[in-house]
Amino acid sequence: MNQYTARQVHLMESLKDHGLNGSLILSPASIFYYTGFLSDPHERFMALAISPETGRAILFVPALDYEAASGIAAVDQIIPISDDQMPMEVVKEAIPKLSGPVGIEPKALNYERYVWLTQTFPDISVRDIEELISKQRLCKSAEEVESIKEAIRIIEQVMEDGVRKVRPGMMEAELMAELEYLMRMHGADGPSFSTIVLSGEKAALPHGSPGGRKIGAGDFLLIDMGVTKDGYCSDITRTFIIGEPTEKQRKIYDIVLRSNEAGIAASRGGVPLGSIDEASRKVIEDEGYGKFFNNRVGHGVGIEVHEAPSVHGKNTSLADPGNVFTIEPGIYISGYGGVRIEDIVHIREDGQAEVLTASPKTIRIIEA
Amino acid sequence: MNQYTARQVHLMESLKDHGLNGSLILSPASIFYYTGFLSDPHERFMALAISPETGRAILFVPALDYEAASGIAAVDQIIPISDDQMPMEVVKEAIPKLSGPVGIEPKALNYERYVWLTQTFPDISVRDIEELISKQRLCKSAEEVESIKEAIRIIEQVMEDGVRKVRPGMMEAELMAELEYLMRMHGADGPSFSTIVLSGEKAALPHGSPGGRKIGAGDFLLIDMGVTKDGYCSDITRTFIIGEPTEKQRKIYDIVLRSNEAGIAASRGGVPLGSIDEASRKVIEDEGYGKFFNNRVGHGVGIEVHEAPSVHGKNTSLADPGNVFTIEPGIYISGYGGVRIEDIVHIREDGQAEVLTASPKTIRIIEA
Repeated sequence: MNQYTARQVHLMESLKDHGLNGSLILSPASIFYYTGFLSDPHERFMALAISPETGRAILFVPALDYEAASGIAAVDQIIPISDDQMPMEVVKEAIPKLSGPVGIEPKALNYERYVWLTQTFPDISVRDIEELISKQRLCKSAEEVESIKEAIRIIEQVMEDGVRKVRPGMMEAELMAELEYLMRMHGADGPSFSTIVLSGEKAALPHGSPGGRKIGAGDFLLIDMGVTKDGYCSDITRTFIIGEPTEKQRKIYDIVLRSNEAGIAASRGGVPLGSIDEASRKVIEDEGYGKFFNNRVGHGVGIEVHEAPSVHGKNTSLADPGNVFTIEPGIYISGYGGVRIEDIVHIREDGQAEVLTASPKTIRIIEA
Repeated sequence: MNQYTARQVHLMESLKDHGLNGSLILSPASIFYYTGFLSDPHERFMALAISPETGRAILFVPALDYEAASGIAAVDQIIPISDDQMPMEVVKEAIPKLSGPVGIEPKALNYERYVWLTQTFPDISVRDIEELISKQRLCKSAEEVESIKEAIRIIEQVMEDGVRKVRPGMMEAELMAELEYLMRMHGADGPSFSTIVLSGEKAALPHGSPGGRKIGAGDFLLIDMGVTKDGYCSDITRTFIIGEPTEKQRKIYDIVLRSNEAGIAASRGGVPLGSIDEASRKVIEDEGYGKFFNNRVGHGVGIEVHEAPSVHGKNTSLADPGNVFTIEPGIYISGYGGVRIEDIVHIREDGQAEVLTASPKTIRIIEA
């Protein structure tokens, strides 16, 4: 049994435990997880039907992707849907007896398809299985951790090569272009999210986007980026300083670094995820900068760059072996600037945290 | 009244005509269209409530985006939603009386939010207003056409600069990296879709993705790409030949070029969109290559790179002034290669088609 079939069997067991007759999985990330077939169908219909009753997994793909899917997807049957077919009619033909409670992912099922589904199968009732799937996905196998490491290896090369390209007077958007070029040249399938390059006071914006601002002496330079490679993501942030840092810059950088290290030190199997956020946050709060750190300390990383678990103060779930998540505290002072240092940790089988990122974190100065 | 308010008023009239009390618009593209505020909220909740009853437009945004939205969005009120609030509770507080038929976009409303919505407002029934919105959006204003032209200007510069970077032995992915770098350097906000660079037999794949294949003598080189700039998209395809073309390559190129020109010649106000597809397809069919052109001839372009109208043979809707769409016939021969030539046309007020793309289309040879 390959890993994909094993995952399907695991899901069938969970579905059975929850009294579900079947499931229709629509999110491309989950379909990749259960079949090995990675594809963005855009507006077209792609779905994986997994049934504990029949023990079968059927993948429905756009006709255009049929050949590609046939070479890869570990399923019992692949059914193409051409542009002039109604997707649900095709599903109905393949699994005419679908009825009773059926599991779906509520975020991946849009209202249009919900209407199609319930009109085509009037005897079903939909049930939310998102948590069930995300619980399975959040315990990464050794192979998955290797894939994440490969995506991290690429992005760390990009960080190292990229930071050498920085020269004062360069625009943020120019550096972003260089970084995304390097991602491709180092073999990435693409950025895992829109690359963030923020300088000076803009580094205080957790959601800012790179623009025409020129990187100059005295700036913080915050770079937050990641790539996807063979279906898995990386995500890392480093903050640099252009020219000799001021005392205040050194102090803020040092607090964020200690907060990052405290978050990592608190990460291990069996502790509530909230306690990791608290440990990291406490360092910043104790220095009186608590109000400048107003977001969760981390998030899971895997097939998606943001996935379970959410590492925030109120999360009482426990960190488990196989979990992979970021630790990314920051201090963001509006009108002044900001520092964020982000690593990725993996909870090993023995419960210890392994830090997967290795880019240097000691304060790093770029010649002005 | 600015253009955004005018669009809101137009929508209110349509909603009233259809007996709707209100609408909750969730797609970022439509929110940009009606407010001028362009943002991808990712997993967070963003919605625009437009009500013909109250005559008000209320924009709900993630708290992180509140400042940015306040500077831009042309609405009566902006309400931030923080991460610890339930979005629908905030909506309920702002518009407690929402009831009766309410318009939504079925593709943009996911099942999770549909459940929240109908639980929070048990007296509403949702109605599909996607067509109503897309009808409004598909007649572009002069300003919108200017924005599309700017996105085209950038991508045509990228095409011109990019093609000079091609050298035999270069990998597809390497050229893709160069092209996306040039996009950023020429001021694009980003690619409007994943850049397609396909060479040799891979050029026969309408959905292929660039990889390690090396571009070499005798290849077709198909480049399909676009950018977004200030919220509007471009999309263009050119196919080049590496080294002296064979007679068969010249013939196929010539047929596709004539098909492209026939599609453009058939484009004018008042004709059924299907007739444009037919005119373009006829050229290819008459030459006996009909089975190698198995997709629609074009699609609308605007805030989204694929939007209404769909230019396919069965579309009986008429081309109207303000419509902007692609004409992109192709011949794709499995195992051999393919050619696609894609332009963007705009139906002017006088009904004549204006071709917005200007990159040369005569057969172009890159030195092997």
